[in-house]
Amino acid sequence: MIERYSLSPMKELWTEAAQYARWLEVELAVVEVFEETGDAPQGSAAVMRAKAVIDPDEIRRIEMETDHDVIAFIKSVTSRMGDEARYFHKGLTSSDVVDTAWSLAMKRAGELVLAEVDRMIEALRGLALRHKDTITVGRTHGMHAEPTSFGLKALSWLAEAERNRERVARATDGIAHGKISGAVGNYAHIPPQLEERVLAKLGLKPSKVSTQVVPRDHHAEWVSALALLGAGIERLATEVRHLQRTEVGEAMEPFRSGQRGSSAMPHKRNPILCERLCGLARLLRGHVATAYENIALWHERDISHSSADRVILPDAALAAHYMAQRTVGLVEGLVVDTERMRENFGASHNLVFSQRLLLALVDKGMSREEAYLLVQQRAMEAANSRRDFRALAGQDDRVRRLLAEDDLDRVFDGAAYLRHVGDVFQRFQLP
Amino acid sequence: MIERYSLSPMKELWTEAAQYARWLEVELAVVEVFEETGDAPQGSAAVMRAKAVIDPDEIRRIEMETDHDVIAFIKSVTSRMGDEARYFHKGLTSSDVVDTAWSLAMKRAGELVLAEVDRMIEALRGLALRHKDTITVGRTHGMHAEPTSFGLKALSWLAEAERNRERVARATDGIAHGKISGAVGNYAHIPPQLEERVLAKLGLKPSKVSTQVVPRDHHAEWVSALALLGAGIERLATEVRHLQRTEVGEAMEPFRSGQRGSSAMPHKRNPILCERLCGLARLLRGHVATAYENIALWHERDISHSSADRVILPDAALAAHYMAQRTVGLVEGLVVDTERMRENFGASHNLVFSQRLLLALVDKGMSREEAYLLVQQRAMEAANSRRDFRALAGQDDRVRRLLAEDDLDRVFDGAAYLRHVGDVFQRFQLP
Amino acid sequence: MIERYSLSPMKELWTEAAQYARWLEVELAVVEVFEETGDAPQGSAAVMRAKAVIDPDEIRRIEMETDHDVIAFIKSVTSRMGDEARYFHKGLTSSDVVDTAWSLAMKRAGELVLAEVDRMIEALRGLALRHKDTITVGRTHGMHAEPTSFGLKALSWLAEAERNRERVARATDGIAHGKISGAVGNYAHIPPQLEERVLAKLGLKPSKVSTQVVPRDHHAEWVSALALLGAGIERLATEVRHLQRTEVGEAMEPFRSGQRGSSAMPHKRNPILCERLCGLARLLRGHVATAYENIALWHERDISHSSADRVILPDAALAAHYMAQRTVGLVEGLVVDTERMRENFGASHNLVFSQRLLLALVDKGMSREEAYLLVQQRAMEAANSRRDFRALAGQDDRVRRLLAEDDLDRVFDGAAYLRHVGDVFQRFQLP
Amino acid sequence: MIERYSLSPMKELWTEAAQYARWLEVELAVVEVFEETGDAPQGSAAVMRAKAVIDPDEIRRIEMETDHDVIAFIKSVTSRMGDEARYFHKGLTSSDVVDTAWSLAMKRAGELVLAEVDRMIEALRGLALRHKDTITVGRTHGMHAEPTSFGLKALSWLAEAERNRERVARATDGIAHGKISGAVGNYAHIPPQLEERVLAKLGLKPSKVSTQVVPRDHHAEWVSALALLGAGIERLATEVRHLQRTEVGEAMEPFRSGQRGSSAMPHKRNPILCERLCGLARLLRGHVATAYENIALWHERDISHSSADRVILPDAALAAHYMAQRTVGLVEGLVVDTERMRENFGASHNLVFSQRLLLALVDKGMSREEAYLLVQQRAMEAANSRRDFRALAGQDDRVRRLLAEDDLDRVFDGAAYLRHVGDVFQRFQLP
Repeated sequence: MIERYSLSPMKELWTEAAQYARWLEVELAVVEVFEETGDAPQGSAAVMRAKAVIDPDEIRRIEMETDHDVIAFIKSVTSRMGDEARYFHKGLTSSDVVDTAWSLAMKRAGELVLAEVDRMIEALRGLALRHKDTITVGRTHGMHAEPTSFGLKALSWLAEAERNRERVARATDGIAHGKISGAVGNYAHIPPQLEERVLAKLGLKPSKVSTQVVPRDHHAEWVSALALLGAGIERLATEVRHLQRTEVGEAMEPFRSGQRGSSAMPHKRNPILCERLCGLARLLRGHVATAYENIALWHERDISHSSADRVILPDAALAAHYMAQRTVGLVEGLVVDTERMRENFGASHNLVFSQRLLLALVDKGMSREEAYLLVQQRAMEAANSRRDFRALAGQDDRVRRLLAEDDLDRVFDGAAYLRHVGDVFQRFQLP
Repeated sequence: MIERYSLSPMKELWTEAAQYARWLEVELAVVEVFEETGDAPQGSAAVMRAKAVIDPDEIRRIEMETDHDVIAFIKSVTSRMGDEARYFHKGLTSSDVVDTAWSLAMKRAGELVLAEVDRMIEALRGLALRHKDTITVGRTHGMHAEPTSFGLKALSWLAEAERNRERVARATDGIAHGKISGAVGNYAHIPPQLEERVLAKLGLKPSKVSTQVVPRDHHAEWVSALALLGAGIERLATEVRHLQRTEVGEAMEPFRSGQRGSSAMPHKRNPILCERLCGLARLLRGHVATAYENIALWHERDISHSSADRVILPDAALAAHYMAQRTVGLVEGLVVDTERMRENFGASHNLVFSQRLLLALVDKGMSREEAYLLVQQRAMEAANSRRDFRALAGQDDRVRRLLAEDDLDRVFDGAAYLRHVGDVFQRFQLP
Repeated sequence: MIERYSLSPMKELWTEAAQYARWLEVELAVVEVFEETGDAPQGSAAVMRAKAVIDPDEIRRIEMETDHDVIAFIKSVTSRMGDEARYFHKGLTSSDVVDTAWSLAMKRAGELVLAEVDRMIEALRGLALRHKDTITVGRTHGMHAEPTSFGLKALSWLAEAERNRERVARATDGIAHGKISGAVGNYAHIPPQLEERVLAKLGLKPSKVSTQVVPRDHHAEWVSALALLGAGIERLATEVRHLQRTEVGEAMEPFRSGQRGSSAMPHKRNPILCERLCGLARLLRGHVATAYENIALWHERDISHSSADRVILPDAALAAHYMAQRTVGLVEGLVVDTERMRENFGASHNLVFSQRLLLALVDKGMSREEAYLLVQQRAMEAANSRRDFRALAGQDDRVRRLLAEDDLDRVFDGAAYLRHVGDVFQRFQLP
Repeated sequence: MIERYSLSPMKELWTEAAQYARWLEVELAVVEVFEETGDAPQGSAAVMRAKAVIDPDEIRRIEMETDHDVIAFIKSVTSRMGDEARYFHKGLTSSDVVDTAWSLAMKRAGELVLAEVDRMIEALRGLALRHKDTITVGRTHGMHAEPTSFGLKALSWLAEAERNRERVARATDGIAHGKISGAVGNYAHIPPQLEERVLAKLGLKPSKVSTQVVPRDHHAEWVSALALLGAGIERLATEVRHLQRTEVGEAMEPFRSGQRGSSAMPHKRNPILCERLCGLARLLRGHVATAYENIALWHERDISHSSADRVILPDAALAAHYMAQRTVGLVEGLVVDTERMRENFGASHNLVFSQRLLLALVDKGMSREEAYLLVQQRAMEAANSRRDFRALAGQDDRVRRLLAEDDLDRVFDGAAYLRHVGDVFQRFQLP
């Protein structure tokens, strides 16, 4: 991932040095268990830890020769060790180390993402609460539909964020499985009991059955969950982009003092953060396809997944983390123009009450079909002539026969649309 | 593809019976060449054609037994033939027939799509011409940027349609290659000279080198090109969806008398066709990934592509054809509200002239940086207070020092933005 | 989905008539609750049910006129009803019906898939048990690695199937949410309490918060889960394709008597089912991208998802159902050639014991690096000259100094690789 | 893209500094034209070039403040300029610079990829020529089909490489369009004539019509073409992976002295390069979906494409370049074991001649159906009992009645399968 979208502390997780440190962590956890089982002298791991060298440049140099990164790592990291080096990587196959370390990294990355999602959820609760009673027009197909509460919109983002939190947590739990089961997953040189103890030290569980590697459906589910999180953020960001457009102007992403919208047009104030989030959601989606293709490895494993994993796993983590983190600021700093909301609502000539009028006519005994045609005709007339729909409909004889002026007052009453908003808030334990 | 998005004559191309008819077409073209080379008695093909039976139900029954569709086809189609049947499928491998027939179908399907794209291009030329001088506000990031011509928008769709026409034509030309090269592409039982004559009868060229099948990169390029066409239509449809939204109202897709926008809200008039086109563009994109995965077949072929091909090739053709066809109607029937365009343009307080003011100040010697800050400050003020930007800026001393009232007239002149529109039209040989 | 990959009872779920029947089911559930709340006369729903007509052709005709499928449905289905029709669709918006019916269909489709996955799991348990002690060579990178148990392979498919079962079940539970919350999700015309009762009748739960529609992340997760299931099946099918290849011949998919492998080459017996499953897995992956793009709808919904949903939701269900169902037969009928497995194992000149030799040398005090180079050199020699690795290594002085003949017997002992297989079986409660 | 898959000179193209250098290149080309048209004093561009500072760190710092990268760039790069700075970026909008610079970068990147593809094509021609007469068994469905020439396989990769070369060249030509058409593509502040001259200096053509940006279908086509190239390489790499597997052993990717195949199993020699290439092909495919989603920008542009572009455009270029470059070495160094090819061919009991036997029987008057069943029966018998098919078939009375021993010699003649290989080579102007 490019620097621009890499935020701390996520980006420190994906440096080369951090990766080798995790490899060492796995190797030493094995030696520690060897000590416990009497397969290595007491204190071996401690000595190794003290003498271990992590030097990515040297590892790269050795890899040039061996064409094998783990062998290069072992050679370099043990270069200052003495005889204890014989217990290093003993009985292990490269993937025991590499794949377990991937799981470690993804578990930790998942937790960093979740921390940002938690902040995002908190911010969304705040936004929902602040705007529980803010009336705004609901839109379907981009067209005014019926009035609603702006807080209800926020709740819908909140609910989606909660679902995505659960998906990411579950997928992170899924990837929190390592394997120390040898070259083909049959524990030929290391018994399952040792695997369990090693992984417990690392905060991981054993894969119920592994091949040479941890099964790739875990990784695919994880990328999938991050992409769903991304798509949820994209939905929110898309809404803000719509609300910010010149003609709508109901909400705006934060615009810092000193910020410039355009090198050419000084008047511009653009929803660039939201647009950026949408682009990153697309990137995440692309990685899903790749992750799914990585599942059907040949026999006990082929390594075709590896080149793709090296790119998409850090990238997906970094993109999702960036997106969640920036969404917190977006939601917290969202500039909501309730005045403009009211204005826009008013600008559609009361057409948004058409269903209430339809239902009122049906209640008074008109057939649904007749009522629909009547209301549609008057509504189109109002829209085309830009005249007030209530006034136009109120002049229709068939309406006047059935509805008195105070009936019409009840029909054209915006507050009626918000009367159940509190019920929905209660589902979130929100007042 | 579901019936709903399958239009004639494309859908007739993809029936089971049509597929078998193409298989027969290939088989008989071979027999005709056999006649020419003396490998079959004169008139064999004609007799076969007369006696051939195409009965999908029977073929399905036989396939249940043999688990091989071509064998079932041969058995069924030759069931009423006499001794001439011995020349039927002689020396051929199934894929000689099936894959050549795929190419035939895709070539014809490509031509049907191109015919609709041609109509789409015609419609777009018309739209561009009608609105060459229609002033409208150009928007970037969803925000008012600078004025432009609505016809220029149409030209940008036209140019993209032309490019996509070329891509589809090229990919269709690419897929117009068949193969009669036998089980592993080495012409073991049929010489290349025969292949050439057979394919010429079918309007196809020989694959320069084939395996058991025509290489799948052709199919992938074809699906790719259709998806690009779809994405271009999606761009146009997305624009209309934006222009139709209640607050903008500058253009609307056709709404037929009798049409209803919502079962609940009689006032609704929604851009449902445009939304539908966007959904189909997504479907096409999904098929691209599948088509690309079908390329790396094992050795001289494996048949893993087949189940996917059977779904995505007709689906992609039908979706693209539907989209292009419906876009013709969309463009021809587009309701453009030039009055509203002018209004919306006016509603942004003359902010769209900010760059012209900036440049005028720089021309008069102000530094770009100072001018930018001055203009940005006045613009934000105008936006926030909803006051006229020209008035506000005109009161600024630094502006007044440099620009007289008639300078400001020149700055705030909408016509200036259209002065090069004609140059762009000329690139399309449009007056 | 094409007929060829549509199996009962899944395909009956996706007919047009079945869809309208579900719409009716939702509409009548609302009327039933109206009866309970006194908003409709007792017995209304029963009368409606008796008089309801489901005539897809007529609906299509009316839709041609109204361009709105739900309105066409209402008009047609209520055409023989009397005054009770006034309670039909009362206070509802189209999406209350359509989207709740989608959820119903997907819930039922999910259950059908799960039933096949359960049978698949059962078949895999059987396969694993039958071959717990079947020794076979494990392969990584397509190359012989170390011996393993064929039953362990089956366990790895089983474990993945179990995980995918859980994912599909969870996603199906996720999609089992409906909504009767009106045009913009604010319960403007129908209270939440009514929604809850209606959905309970249908076996669904209310969406915690909906817009006009059930949030599309549920649908995306569902397609995702089906595609993961497909990818798991693809992994299994890919393995069988490898094992069946002429040079390996260790396992073969069932080949029915009467079946034919090739129209040209009578000797062919090809893994066509497995290849077909791989193709369908690609199709499913393509649909994931589409489903993810459907999430970020505009405001309270736009209908761009609809055209894509209409294609991918049934297609994904049908493909996954077909795949799982056919995999049952594949696993149950898999022809395993244990004799050939032993032979192939033997054919790699005992090279698969290289790690055991390496470890034995290290145990005797040789440094890992020296031992590695020694073993690698002898192994390459054996491979290149096709001579027995044990014999060659045994002649090496450095080996002879450290290992006696009975040490070598222990090193070159295939059974040692299976000693922990039982531990893994126990994790599945398998003997 | 991670360092591991970034090769020179491609990687130098995508550094931050190189990007800013391209921006400067575009800015100064404009000034040069200003000089020609008299809009800037002679020599301005030269002075600016001399005084321009490219300091990515400083630009980043300023961007932190302005949240606009081009404004930061301008401020930094002009910081040591004097009054001439007033002509820098004059009349331009950011995208004039940024998007034209993208085109420049992609054009150059495309050329670097093409150079590697040319070398790949050369290597494939060599491989094809060397193995024109190398007999090997052709395989379909992973099963022995009929004999063929190994050189013919190479030709099929060559043909695909040639097609992909053409696609990449065409897409690179497509992206070689820039735009200096202002904020909404209407040349409001800069005339088309100036654009043409500026772009000519840069080796680019003007977009026939642009919005604020170069239309994204060009970028999508380019990523698409690179992914097709990747898929073609994947097909080749997949074949090598198959041929290298232990049981086949017909070809191996180069294995350097000093290289190690496994940290645990010294005997391993794995096709890791080919596997890596397959993984990168998946990565490229994922980026295609993203690139397609970037097309449908809002109105005259939204910037949602930008974050995705910043990642996928360099990544796609780097991955494709790496793949093509490494494929050259793979093809040149491919270890072909013609001895093993002959052996494997012999190991399938002459079954590969089944079609020739079938055709010979039909030629002698047996019906196709009868001949098929006879041959299939004998072939299955030979396969199951691992006995020689010719011997078994030769004992069948029905065969003996029709075919003498020398007829059988002609049937079971491997050379017959290669007799048209020369014809195919001629299509490539290869001897």
